[in-house]
Amino acid sequence: MQRVLAAQLGEHVGQRVLVQGWLHAVRKLGEVNFLVVRDRSGICQAVTSLDDLKPLDGLQHESVIAVEGEVVAAPKAPGGYELYHNRVQVISPVTTPLPFSLNKNRIRANQPAFLDHAVIGQRHLNQRAILRLASGVMQGFRATLDALDFVEIQTPKLVASATESGANVFAVDYFGQTAYLAQSPQFYKQIMVGVFERVYEVGPVFRAEPHATTRHLNEYVSLDVEIGFIEDHYTVMALLTDVIRGILNHLVTHYSAQLCLLKAKLPDVSERIPDIHIVDAQRLLTEQFGMTDALGAPDLTPEHERLLGNWAKAEYGSDFLFVTGYPLAKRPFYTHPDPERPGYSRGFDLLFRGMELVTGGQRLHRYEDYLAAARAHGLDPAPFASYFEAFAHGMPPHGGFAIGLERFLMQLLDLQNVRQAALFPRDLNRLAP
Amino acid sequence: MQRVLAAQLGEHVGQRVLVQGWLHAVRKLGEVNFLVVRDRSGICQAVTSLDDLKPLDGLQHESVIAVEGEVVAAPKAPGGYELYHNRVQVISPVTTPLPFSLNKNRIRANQPAFLDHAVIGQRHLNQRAILRLASGVMQGFRATLDALDFVEIQTPKLVASATESGANVFAVDYFGQTAYLAQSPQFYKQIMVGVFERVYEVGPVFRAEPHATTRHLNEYVSLDVEIGFIEDHYTVMALLTDVIRGILNHLVTHYSAQLCLLKAKLPDVSERIPDIHIVDAQRLLTEQFGMTDALGAPDLTPEHERLLGNWAKAEYGSDFLFVTGYPLAKRPFYTHPDPERPGYSRGFDLLFRGMELVTGGQRLHRYEDYLAAARAHGLDPAPFASYFEAFAHGMPPHGGFAIGLERFLMQLLDLQNVRQAALFPRDLNRLAP
Repeated sequence: MQRVLAAQLGEHVGQRVLVQGWLHAVRKLGEVNFLVVRDRSGICQAVTSLDDLKPLDGLQHESVIAVEGEVVAAPKAPGGYELYHNRVQVISPVTTPLPFSLNKNRIRANQPAFLDHAVIGQRHLNQRAILRLASGVMQGFRATLDALDFVEIQTPKLVASATESGANVFAVDYFGQTAYLAQSPQFYKQIMVGVFERVYEVGPVFRAEPHATTRHLNEYVSLDVEIGFIEDHYTVMALLTDVIRGILNHLVTHYSAQLCLLKAKLPDVSERIPDIHIVDAQRLLTEQFGMTDALGAPDLTPEHERLLGNWAKAEYGSDFLFVTGYPLAKRPFYTHPDPERPGYSRGFDLLFRGMELVTGGQRLHRYEDYLAAARAHGLDPAPFASYFEAFAHGMPPHGGFAIGLERFLMQLLDLQNVRQAALFPRDLNRLAP
Repeated sequence: MQRVLAAQLGEHVGQRVLVQGWLHAVRKLGEVNFLVVRDRSGICQAVTSLDDLKPLDGLQHESVIAVEGEVVAAPKAPGGYELYHNRVQVISPVTTPLPFSLNKNRIRANQPAFLDHAVIGQRHLNQRAILRLASGVMQGFRATLDALDFVEIQTPKLVASATESGANVFAVDYFGQTAYLAQSPQFYKQIMVGVFERVYEVGPVFRAEPHATTRHLNEYVSLDVEIGFIEDHYTVMALLTDVIRGILNHLVTHYSAQLCLLKAKLPDVSERIPDIHIVDAQRLLTEQFGMTDALGAPDLTPEHERLLGNWAKAEYGSDFLFVTGYPLAKRPFYTHPDPERPGYSRGFDLLFRGMELVTGGQRLHRYEDYLAAARAHGLDPAPFASYFEAFAHGMPPHGGFAIGLERFLMQLLDLQNVRQAALFPRDLNRLAP
C-alpha cells in the first residue's frame, strides 16, 4: 500500500491508508485509545483498541511505526481526521527513553541540556518550524536576487590570509602551511562583481571571537550580496529593502503554518525604510533619551540601537531603521568615504527591532584608493595582492551587505538567544553535536 | 539616462541609450573604429570616430566605461545591433596591462598562470559561462528537491571529531581545543532525516588528501541529499536519477546560451539509468576487456570505470551507469549490508562518462547495528556519541548521495581538469587567490 502523509488524510476519507512516522504520543484510556504519529507533514491520530497497540508494548516514544487504517473525518482531532480499524507495525523499535518530552507544547529542558541532545530536540514541532523558516529565508533571499539578475557564487572558505583584519580568525593546518577560515566572503564577492556585476552567496562564515553573548555564534550562515554600477550606498540600501521584503513575502506565501505555530509577528516593510545619519542618531539619543555617552562616540552601543529601534517604531511605525554614515575609523579599510562629510563613510547598518541585523555600504573601487586605505590602516598590502589585482583591472562603483541568517530568525521570531535559531550552534564552549 | 544592457539593445532601435561595462576590445581602423563593451549580459559594439575614442587614450583593456549612443540594427555585429554617434566616458580608468588577453576565443596562459590571476581570468566569456552553469546546477538541484518536499539544511563545518574516519581531515585551533573541518555533512544529514525525512545541503566540504590529480580538490562544493522511508538503495538511485534529470532540464531551459558557447554535449538520461552489480562488472571487465586485475578486487580503478563507461554507452546508449553492491569492506561503516549477498553492501556509485561522479547508498538505521559496525571497523564509539544518539531514538530506513559540483561540470563540459570548473581552487600547492 502506498504511504500517505498525515496532512493528506483529508484526500482519502473512507479509504484505508498507510501512514508512517514516529510514535509521537499515546494515550491509553481503556476502551478508546489514541495513538499520535508524526511525519514530515505534521501529526495525525489513530483511534485504537488496546489490542491494536500490542506491537508497541515495551517501546518508547520516537519508535518508527506504520499504521494502516481507515480515514474518518473528525473535526476535533488534530488535522481534522482520524484513523480507525488500525493495524500497527513497528519499523524501528526504540527502547531508550527520551531525554525530554517531544510531544509537549514546549521542550522542558534548560538550554545546555537541549543543545546536548539537539539531534533529538530538533524534532520538536516548534524547533522544526524554526528550521523550516531558515530554509524559507534562504529560498526567499535567492528567489528575490535571481529575479534581479544576480548570480550565485560559492567562494573558498580556506584562505591564505585573514580576510578583513588579523584578529578573530581560526587557523588551519594546511599541509604544513597555516591557512585561515574565511570570516566572510567579502573580498571574493567584490572580485566577482568584476565578473557578474551582481552576485550573492549563502554559506558558512567563521568568527573566532572569544566572547559569549546571546547574539553571537562562532560559525553562522551568512547571506551575502554585492552589486556593481551603483550610485552610492543608497542604491545598496534600496536593494536590501527589496531583499528583506522579498524574504518576508516568501515566508508569508509559503510558510504561514510555521509562522502561525510560532506566533510570529511579521514586520511591515515600508516602501522606503527610514534612515538616519549616525551623527543625527547620536544627537537624538543625547537630546531625547539622555544618552550622554552617544554624542561623538565612534559606534552605537546595543542600548543605543534598542532606543533607536523604539524611536523608529514610534516615529515611522517601522520595525526597521537604517543608520548611515558610520565614522570611517570604525569601518573596514575597503569602506568608501562620504566625499561630503570628511571622516564619515558610505557605510550603513540596518537595525531590525532595535538590533543590528545587517552591515553594508559602498566599497572603494579604485586601485589607488585601496593602496592608500591599506597604508592608512597600517596594513601590509602583500597578503592582499590578488584581491587588489581585481581593482587594478577595472571595477565599477559597487557595494553590498551581509545578513546573518540565525540572527534574522532570532529577531523575526522574538527568540531570546541566537542559539535557538541555529541548527547545531558553535560557541566558545560547544563544538558538538 | 537609464542604463541598458548589451543584450537589450534590440528593444531600443532608433533610440539613444547608455551602456556601461568593461572595455573589452577596441579596433582602430582610422575612418571607422570599433569599441566593444562587455557587461553582465554579453558584449556590444560601438562604431566610433577616432575623436570619440580620445577619452580612452593611454588606457588599457578592462577600463570601466560608459557609452551613450544610438542603437542601429546591424545583423553582422555581435548581438545584431551597434551603437552610433557615441559619447564615451571613463568610469574607472585602467593603466595596468592584462596578464593575458580576455577578448580572444581562449585564454592563452598555462594553468598555473591562469590560476595565479584567476580574479581577472574568470571574467573571460568562457570562464564566466562555466561559473554561470555552476549556479545553474545548484538551482536545478534545489528546484528538483524542493518540488519533492525536501528541506534545505546548513550544517556545521567545524566539528569535534573527524567525520567518517580519522584520516584526511584538516585540524583547526578552536579556542585551544582541536576541531576539524567537516569532510562531508554525512552524519548531520542522516540526523536530520529524523527531523524532516528528506533533506539536502549545498555547501563546502574539506578533504586533506595530499595527492595531486586532475580530478581532486581539497575544498569543493558538495550537493548532498538524504531521504528516509526508503525500500533499499534502488529508491535512492531512482531519486538520484530524477535529480540528475532535473538539473540537466534546468540547464537546457535556462542556460542554453552558456551551453552553446561552451559547445557542451548534454547527455540523455534514460527513464531508468542502467545498473550493474560490481561482481558482474568485474566479470565483464575480465572476460570482455581482459582486465585481469578486476575480478575480486575491492574496488574499481579509474581505468575500469572508463571501460565500463564505454560499455554502458555502447550497450545502452547511456552516458550514466550505476555500479551497485560494492564490498562492505571498502565502504564507510554506516553503509547498509546487502542481506542477500554477505560481504557486499547496498552502496552504489554513479559513473558519468566513465568517471565516478556520485557515491551513495542505503545506511544502517538501527542503533545496535551502529554499535556493531563501529566495533567491526575498530572505531571508538565515544566521538560518535551524539550521532549514534539519533539512532537510539528511532530512525527509518534511509539513504542518500553526494554530487561533487566541480566534477559534475568537468564531466558535463568535457574539461581536462577539475580546476577549470572551480572558482578559486584549493589544492596541495594553492591557497590563493
